[in-house]
Amino acid sequence: MTIGKSVRRVDAIAKVTGKARYTDDFFMPGMLHAKYLRSTIAHGVVTRIDTDRAKALPGVVAVFTFEDVPPHKFATAGHPYALDPDHKDVEDRLLLTRHVRYWGDEIAVVVAENNLALEKALQCIDVEYEAYDPMTTAKEALAPDARQIHAGAPNLVAESGYAVGTRIDDALDEADEVLTTEYRTQLVQHCHIENHVTYAYMDDFDHIVIVSSTQIPHIARRIVGEALDIPCGRIRVIKPYIGGGFGNKQDVVLEPMAAFLTLKLDGRPVKIHLAREEGMIGTRIRHPFDIRVRAGVMKDGTLHALDIDALSNTGAYASHGHSVAGAAGAKTRALYPRTAMRYHARTVYANIPASGAMRAYGAPQVLFAVDCMIEEAARKIGMDSVAFRLKNIIRQGDIDPLTHKPYSTCGLTECLTKGRELIQWDQKRADRPREQTGPVRRGLGVACFSYASGTYPVCLEIAGARIILNQDASVHVQVGATEIGQGMDTVVAQMTAETLGVAVEQVHVVSTQDTDVTPFDTGAYASRQAYVTSNAVFRAAIELKDKILKHADSMTGITADRLDLIDGRVVYAVDAGHTVLPLQAVALDAYYDKVRGGQLTAEVSYKTTTNAPCFGCTFVEVKVDIPLCQVTIKEIYNVHDSGVILNPVLAQGQVQGGAAMGIAAALYEDLQVDPDSGRIYNNNLLDYKFPTIMDIPDIGCAFVETVEPSSGYGNKALGEPPIISPPPAIRNAVWDATGVKVDELPLSPHNLFKCFRRAGLI
Amino acid sequence: MTIGKSVRRVDAIAKVTGKARYTDDFFMPGMLHAKYLRSTIAHGVVTRIDTDRAKALPGVVAVFTFEDVPPHKFATAGHPYALDPDHKDVEDRLLLTRHVRYWGDEIAVVVAENNLALEKALQCIDVEYEAYDPMTTAKEALAPDARQIHAGAPNLVAESGYAVGTRIDDALDEADEVLTTEYRTQLVQHCHIENHVTYAYMDDFDHIVIVSSTQIPHIARRIVGEALDIPCGRIRVIKPYIGGGFGNKQDVVLEPMAAFLTLKLDGRPVKIHLAREEGMIGTRIRHPFDIRVRAGVMKDGTLHALDIDALSNTGAYASHGHSVAGAAGAKTRALYPRTAMRYHARTVYANIPASGAMRAYGAPQVLFAVDCMIEEAARKIGMDSVAFRLKNIIRQGDIDPLTHKPYSTCGLTECLTKGRELIQWDQKRADRPREQTGPVRRGLGVACFSYASGTYPVCLEIAGARIILNQDASVHVQVGATEIGQGMDTVVAQMTAETLGVAVEQVHVVSTQDTDVTPFDTGAYASRQAYVTSNAVFRAAIELKDKILKHADSMTGITADRLDLIDGRVVYAVDAGHTVLPLQAVALDAYYDKVRGGQLTAEVSYKTTTNAPCFGCTFVEVKVDIPLCQVTIKEIYNVHDSGVILNPVLAQGQVQGGAAMGIAAALYEDLQVDPDSGRIYNNNLLDYKFPTIMDIPDIGCAFVETVEPSSGYGNKALGEPPIISPPPAIRNAVWDATGVKVDELPLSPHNLFKCFRRAGLI
Repeated sequence: MTIGKSVRRVDAIAKVTGKARYTDDFFMPGMLHAKYLRSTIAHGVVTRIDTDRAKALPGVVAVFTFEDVPPHKFATAGHPYALDPDHKDVEDRLLLTRHVRYWGDEIAVVVAENNLALEKALQCIDVEYEAYDPMTTAKEALAPDARQIHAGAPNLVAESGYAVGTRIDDALDEADEVLTTEYRTQLVQHCHIENHVTYAYMDDFDHIVIVSSTQIPHIARRIVGEALDIPCGRIRVIKPYIGGGFGNKQDVVLEPMAAFLTLKLDGRPVKIHLAREEGMIGTRIRHPFDIRVRAGVMKDGTLHALDIDALSNTGAYASHGHSVAGAAGAKTRALYPRTAMRYHARTVYANIPASGAMRAYGAPQVLFAVDCMIEEAARKIGMDSVAFRLKNIIRQGDIDPLTHKPYSTCGLTECLTKGRELIQWDQKRADRPREQTGPVRRGLGVACFSYASGTYPVCLEIAGARIILNQDASVHVQVGATEIGQGMDTVVAQMTAETLGVAVEQVHVVSTQDTDVTPFDTGAYASRQAYVTSNAVFRAAIELKDKILKHADSMTGITADRLDLIDGRVVYAVDAGHTVLPLQAVALDAYYDKVRGGQLTAEVSYKTTTNAPCFGCTFVEVKVDIPLCQVTIKEIYNVHDSGVILNPVLAQGQVQGGAAMGIAAALYEDLQVDPDSGRIYNNNLLDYKFPTIMDIPDIGCAFVETVEPSSGYGNKALGEPPIISPPPAIRNAVWDATGVKVDELPLSPHNLFKCFRRAGLI
Repeated sequence: MTIGKSVRRVDAIAKVTGKARYTDDFFMPGMLHAKYLRSTIAHGVVTRIDTDRAKALPGVVAVFTFEDVPPHKFATAGHPYALDPDHKDVEDRLLLTRHVRYWGDEIAVVVAENNLALEKALQCIDVEYEAYDPMTTAKEALAPDARQIHAGAPNLVAESGYAVGTRIDDALDEADEVLTTEYRTQLVQHCHIENHVTYAYMDDFDHIVIVSSTQIPHIARRIVGEALDIPCGRIRVIKPYIGGGFGNKQDVVLEPMAAFLTLKLDGRPVKIHLAREEGMIGTRIRHPFDIRVRAGVMKDGTLHALDIDALSNTGAYASHGHSVAGAAGAKTRALYPRTAMRYHARTVYANIPASGAMRAYGAPQVLFAVDCMIEEAARKIGMDSVAFRLKNIIRQGDIDPLTHKPYSTCGLTECLTKGRELIQWDQKRADRPREQTGPVRRGLGVACFSYASGTYPVCLEIAGARIILNQDASVHVQVGATEIGQGMDTVVAQMTAETLGVAVEQVHVVSTQDTDVTPFDTGAYASRQAYVTSNAVFRAAIELKDKILKHADSMTGITADRLDLIDGRVVYAVDAGHTVLPLQAVALDAYYDKVRGGQLTAEVSYKTTTNAPCFGCTFVEVKVDIPLCQVTIKEIYNVHDSGVILNPVLAQGQVQGGAAMGIAAALYEDLQVDPDSGRIYNNNLLDYKFPTIMDIPDIGCAFVETVEPSSGYGNKALGEPPIISPPPAIRNAVWDATGVKVDELPLSPHNLFKCFRRAGLI
């Protein structure tokens, strides 16, 4: 049994010793370097561009502008291809643009033999613009007379939503109390340690090889094909180890350009490596949302109605925008399935950097608003925050009010109960004076979340696994699911070992995806991989085990159905203590007997048509220094129902990383836009407050294990969810401490100062 | 239909434009370089070695000697692992040796940051030897008092042979005429353009990655494991394009050392690249043979008895030696299956460079002797050379006198008939004066060969193929069979296209083998690949086609058995003109429908348990300038029965390359050993006469196509055979021209001078 054990990460030693190779660790003789020329305005068009001086510089190999790129538009969002044309992503990108839509938009690219020549050349390109007023907020872009940011397309990119239960206005009318609040979330950037980096080359004139720091190699392959109008069979994407992605590498940012450049330059290898300053504007950010929530609540504590209206600013390009707002709203329904609910979202272009996928894909924005409102509702009727939630949240047996399908496993009640105990909620409440005074005050907060295990039924969910029995009785496993730091390779090794019947040390996971040969999988996003891959690995391992036992049958005459494979030994099914053959003997015979057998492999491509929501909550105690406008987290617990926990240490790592990002978004991070120029003030890690280990408290972590039947190993999503509930929990705790209700993220000193001053605290 | 078409090589453009990447084209940051310290004597032991000065040099990273390497011996021959311990290869190697067995033996290795430091360090290692008299010939090594070259093991490495038909002495007694001649073949080196090159590195501390110019990646993986006592699952061998091998890369020469070095050096990448001078002694050469043949012939032209006694000099290490002599003898039986025959071979160690596998694996040596003797027998009874052969060679319906199995296809009679016509044998014979005079004379020669398609039943024959349907209706094919310049990838593409029903341009062959993920195959040798791989590709393509049609069934409701796949279209089986669905529609649906389907792939690992011999002959007309001792080839034709010719242009390439190597061995090549010191005189391409395009005549090539039923596409061996028959044909032609019977190769001016002088011609 390896499932449930804290097996050491298969890549632990490689990574801590620096042996693991990332995209930028690879080098090819003759490699060229490329860098974008970025616009110095946020909105307008280029009226003149002169690259002659740049091209003449020694070391400069080529300069391409918007005039040189393919004229057809493509979409960059890392979604699986949709057979339904209505589900296609928004095709609004060119490789380079004449029409500038954000400060830093890509209008030209220089290729040079070295970075010095590159930088010099960029300075030698003369550009003139016709500038328009930038619209940095969704509201500006929605103004009736607003200029179209994408000519021919409205600035409203998409509308989405749903309504369940009683008609929302009726439900609100029926409620004892109705509350309305507008919330706002800020621009956040992923700040993965490894910046975006990609290189491409050709070994002939038919095939392009792209090595990239991507979460989605198979999707990147398709999108490069779409961008360059090349069949995807001629494109090969290789994904080495990657230093974080958090959704920002679930977008196809550099791959099409790298492929374009090598195509133009006779197949020479060309690398693009974004500097931090470029990456923070030129890749993707988290969508800032304005969300108005109306709640109807009964005096008995029933959350009767919830009306959510979200306005999402997707920035200069659609990327994931149209789907983020829709996906985010669905999570509320699973949290409060008995509440009448309406969700409506609009996604809008604006002249800020493009938003895209980021950990939890809109849920942190929407559930921040929802959970703030839940807190308000509880307070409104004078009910304990936890008790109010316990009364209204999903329970085992609830059905999805939209699809009318039952939710399978749900341990949210147990999560809330456990979290309340961990933080000693009742005791602390009882011990605390009713009204706090003085400059430093303490508060408790709680917030809940639900999330999904993948994207079905909105998108395709497919995973592939191939297992090869080696001569030494070890196995190699290829999966399309990508290791992006989360520990995917390790749980794949555990799953394989568990089902096949070998020690986990005997499982070698092929970490690098190579779209030419790696089984198809859409990649790392939507907390989908351990869930959907489990179904493929389980089946492939069963198939391989079956082949092994059949071969043992052919060697021994003992029928396969009387054999089993346990701990690397073929044993009698009825008496596992009796070894019939060591697995290695079977392997050697299968490979090397001259007549019977063959190399034993199994490959499964499996579509998962279920989607088990996971649940959880955050409990937090904060200390608020009112004069300093500073929030200090004294205790914080994230409690998760993610089904069976495959590897407790890895799971804790996910929770701690996610909760830390949540804390960062709650208290620190804020990518700031000059509303006049559209310029970003702090696209660097000096000015953008990205917390370090010194800023993050010890994070408590607990699990309520349910056994999810639709998953190969009982597991549900865990990758993204830990980020969701810390911000509202912290906001609720600050309210509890100070009596000040903050409705905008982050709770930075800058914002708290405004709120505390408004409240008369300072 | 693509089988039988001269489809352009899939790697043609990559190779002619220099885009194709070979092992030495790859570079890794921090890569170190290694070079062997080679002995300066041919036989003895090192009594003192001092590496201190070398180690102290700047840039030198490490020096290892025979004292530092694992103490257990391993075998290097590139054979599949044998379950039968009696079939194991000879384990007589250490990574470095104290006991020196040839001039250039490997006693230490230096690792440095650059080649300058490397060369300097090698000069700074002080070595003292206790020298023994070298034994450079097999006869010396077999002397009763000869020192054991491998202490504890006799110098006689192996004996092998067979006897069929009447007891040989009786058969010779019965013959009308008995002839006896001793023949000798020289030392030849492969001289592939790309020298041996390998590098190894580690991404962690568990797995070693080896990139190597090898014909046999999967075997190399196993042998590295044996050499270093590491399970093969922890070893990964990657084979990029390779610049020729000819059997010399069917040996595991550099891989174990590169792996050892990276293991010792904390996983740093270490490259070993042999210079030509090293490669010509430190890799492998062709075994020189001394062969005594006795023939018994009847006046009516029946070849009644053939007694072959072969003495093979395998040099310092066994490598393939024990199997080369045995394998070579079997080919004679298939040529003359109705003749009483005895074959006996001894393989002997001597103090010369190790022999190994080389194109046609001993057959050129043994069949040179046999065909020279055939010519003598024909002349003895006054019969036309062609007529004598036609009377005695294998005919359709003959059975193997040893295994009593029938030979399947045989077109040798047709080959001889066609060759005779091509060279206008009868007309030229008739036109020529009975006795030639003058310094320049002309002669005609003929010689036959048979060869095998693989190694079964002596060794395992296994091939693997995996085919992946891409979204764009192209496919990727992975095979374990290696492209080594012969065109394997191209015929794999043709086979796949043919059986699957797509255009050959839609087939992408993954050329690089990577033992972690590539289907198992033992590699390129024994002219096996197109034959045994055909059986795996055929089955995999059928399986994939079946899955495609089943998916089309699920889309359309038309049962799969009423569908077919032709030219990339799913059609009605009864009416191929009616397209039901384009393949791409099926592919997209299989990938992207949210419920049905999945990525469609098929993988087959298949053991071939047949072995179809191929046949052929060479006809040649030479002009001999007697005073200059110079042979000029006026016309030469190789005619082959290799079953169905998969790709005529590629097949012609194989024939022209092989025949050119045969001509080279017949007239030019001769690696010369100083009998006193064991030193090699000409281990470089200035002193070793390797012919260039200026030395090689136009080579005529023709095929007699049989349809071999045991092969996926009717094809039989073709890679090695073209080298076999040119030397005896040329020797027979020189005899025809001059009346001088030369029994030793090469027919170089140096050797011809001796013969012509002895014959009184000069």
